[in-house]
Amino acid sequence: METKTFTVEQVRRFVNDAFRGFGFTDEEAAKITDVLVTADLYGIRSHGTQRLVRYHKQIRSESIKVGVQPEIVFETPVSAVIDGHSGMGQVIACFANQLAIEKAKRVGMAFVTVRNSNHFGIAGYYAKQASDEGLIGIATTNSESIMVHTGSKKAVLGSNPIAFSMPADPVPFWFDAATTVVPRGRIEVYNKAGKPLPEGWAIDDTGKECTDAAKVLSCISAHQGGGILPVGGSREESGSHKGYGFSMIAELLSSITSGGATSNHHKRVAGAGAGSCHAFIVIDPKIFGDPEEIRAHLSEFLQELRDADRADPDVPILTHGEKEAASMEKRLKEGIAIDRKTVSEMVDICKDVGLDSMEYLGEPAE
Amino acid sequence: METKTFTVEQVRRFVNDAFRGFGFTDEEAAKITDVLVTADLYGIRSHGTQRLVRYHKQIRSESIKVGVQPEIVFETPVSAVIDGHSGMGQVIACFANQLAIEKAKRVGMAFVTVRNSNHFGIAGYYAKQASDEGLIGIATTNSESIMVHTGSKKAVLGSNPIAFSMPADPVPFWFDAATTVVPRGRIEVYNKAGKPLPEGWAIDDTGKECTDAAKVLSCISAHQGGGILPVGGSREESGSHKGYGFSMIAELLSSITSGGATSNHHKRVAGAGAGSCHAFIVIDPKIFGDPEEIRAHLSEFLQELRDADRADPDVPILTHGEKEAASMEKRLKEGIAIDRKTVSEMVDICKDVGLDSMEYLGEPAE
Repeated sequence: METKTFTVEQVRRFVNDAFRGFGFTDEEAAKITDVLVTADLYGIRSHGTQRLVRYHKQIRSESIKVGVQPEIVFETPVSAVIDGHSGMGQVIACFANQLAIEKAKRVGMAFVTVRNSNHFGIAGYYAKQASDEGLIGIATTNSESIMVHTGSKKAVLGSNPIAFSMPADPVPFWFDAATTVVPRGRIEVYNKAGKPLPEGWAIDDTGKECTDAAKVLSCISAHQGGGILPVGGSREESGSHKGYGFSMIAELLSSITSGGATSNHHKRVAGAGAGSCHAFIVIDPKIFGDPEEIRAHLSEFLQELRDADRADPDVPILTHGEKEAASMEKRLKEGIAIDRKTVSEMVDICKDVGLDSMEYLGEPAE
Repeated sequence: METKTFTVEQVRRFVNDAFRGFGFTDEEAAKITDVLVTADLYGIRSHGTQRLVRYHKQIRSESIKVGVQPEIVFETPVSAVIDGHSGMGQVIACFANQLAIEKAKRVGMAFVTVRNSNHFGIAGYYAKQASDEGLIGIATTNSESIMVHTGSKKAVLGSNPIAFSMPADPVPFWFDAATTVVPRGRIEVYNKAGKPLPEGWAIDDTGKECTDAAKVLSCISAHQGGGILPVGGSREESGSHKGYGFSMIAELLSSITSGGATSNHHKRVAGAGAGSCHAFIVIDPKIFGDPEEIRAHLSEFLQELRDADRADPDVPILTHGEKEAASMEKRLKEGIAIDRKTVSEMVDICKDVGLDSMEYLGEPAE
């Protein structure tokens, strides 16, 4: 794949000014930019700059509304329910998560749930915001239906990721995973490469296992049957009901607690917000004693996991978050490589919002 | 497998009087009995009466101590840390979970964490205690090392189950699953049947995938390498890091927050408690609005999942907890079938604690 490498500062400036151009305030654009660029820095390209073109379309079609404010519709000292009023997911999620962090600092733990939002980027961004402040952060969301639950041939559940972060040294424990066996982006990669999918990833609209990536993608888009399997595959033998269960936990914590749309009721039409629901749970380790002792206990345990006997002597054992921390370090030094297709989309966005693409990206507009 | 069927009342009376015979108070015996018999009623035999002989041995060798009380060593309005002082896991867990339920009713949500405990039975029992009171219940525990984490050939993590229950009609959502692809009991079943294990379940002490059930079991017992894989198998391609991550969440919530022993530091010697750690998180749906509306929203969603197009027209789609509710209904009517080996162990226990096995089980002592 041909790519062009930009400095992190270049990417930040472009994303920030694009969102200002879309009509967001400086403060909102800064928040959205940080979520997207963090995904690029972590190496999670599907949720970084590459996604800008989709957000752009949704903003233009008013599925994502500009100029609306998240509203607290119910509140207790340990909780809040937020109505996102179909605004930008990242703005709503930052607001909700910040509220959860403040409440947790005040009372020890808090749970803020959100309805009527849109795609919020990587769930792990919000969990990390909490762990950066010495807290335990849990973030989850539902999404457009994409997962066929055990025994079904129709996608009802979303990719429903769960993220968890907790302070540790040298890097925090940072886990962020879709509860599907793979995200849709991975199917797209196989499709582009013309490679058959591994067994246990997806089924088609007849309910049979399917390794044809193009067919699976068209099934997902058509919403008439077929989709990606839960982690654990299609059979109880491999733990299908477990991935299905974890996806349910994400759904219950987000859409059910918030009174919002479950994944199967997300909207996919111009002018209507998706209806995404999120949940942010924040816990202050002070409620269990000395946070420094807890942090040291976790750091020591993570080191024991890394030091365990390797299955393959040449492959180091990782704990969750190490890969992303290393990716960030590398990209901060070496810049962010963006594929040509995305660069050309970025040029189009410059044109649309009146930015000079030569100045921002060193690329002429067509 | 040859079995003998007992009425639920017979099983309850035997288990209760056996634990009284082991030295537990009436109140403690009643709690332990309810956890064990519930597992039998749910059809989770590995955690029911069948396990009595192991508990008996651990009580006799003083790994499980009789006559100790769980102690609150740290407390806030939303939390507590409990030291179990190596008592019976079920007694400690009932105490801790009850405290979490009371706190959640008072302040909206609560997190009680436990160290120095022993095996506590099915995690889902405690989650269900919360949902029976109209609350959301989450329960988890670490355990003896049995899971080889991604890239490792040494078992460091436990089976680390996560349970989640939330009120719904006609039955609550009730999820309880080990974060290993299968529990050890399932490997034992394959071993007894002389059948090879499916791919993706286990590795041996050389770090290679292993389908020889006997070898895997001996590896687990020897603690020198090999064990059961996380849900998601051994490769990132099938989501290995996801099962590993969910297991880590169980570990962090239990042993790290409580300052207790992580799974790899559990003890397996006479006279020392295992050091198991548990976590109980309880959330009152009132903190999100009207609990009845939330319950109705969940019930409706569960019905949509059941009503989805089936992959196989003859196989109904289940939501989590339906199978267990049906099993309970059936066994309350038809009784609990117990295998002959367990029955003979029960007769031995009668003899040991001075119960008349003919009266309790209709079986003569040898």
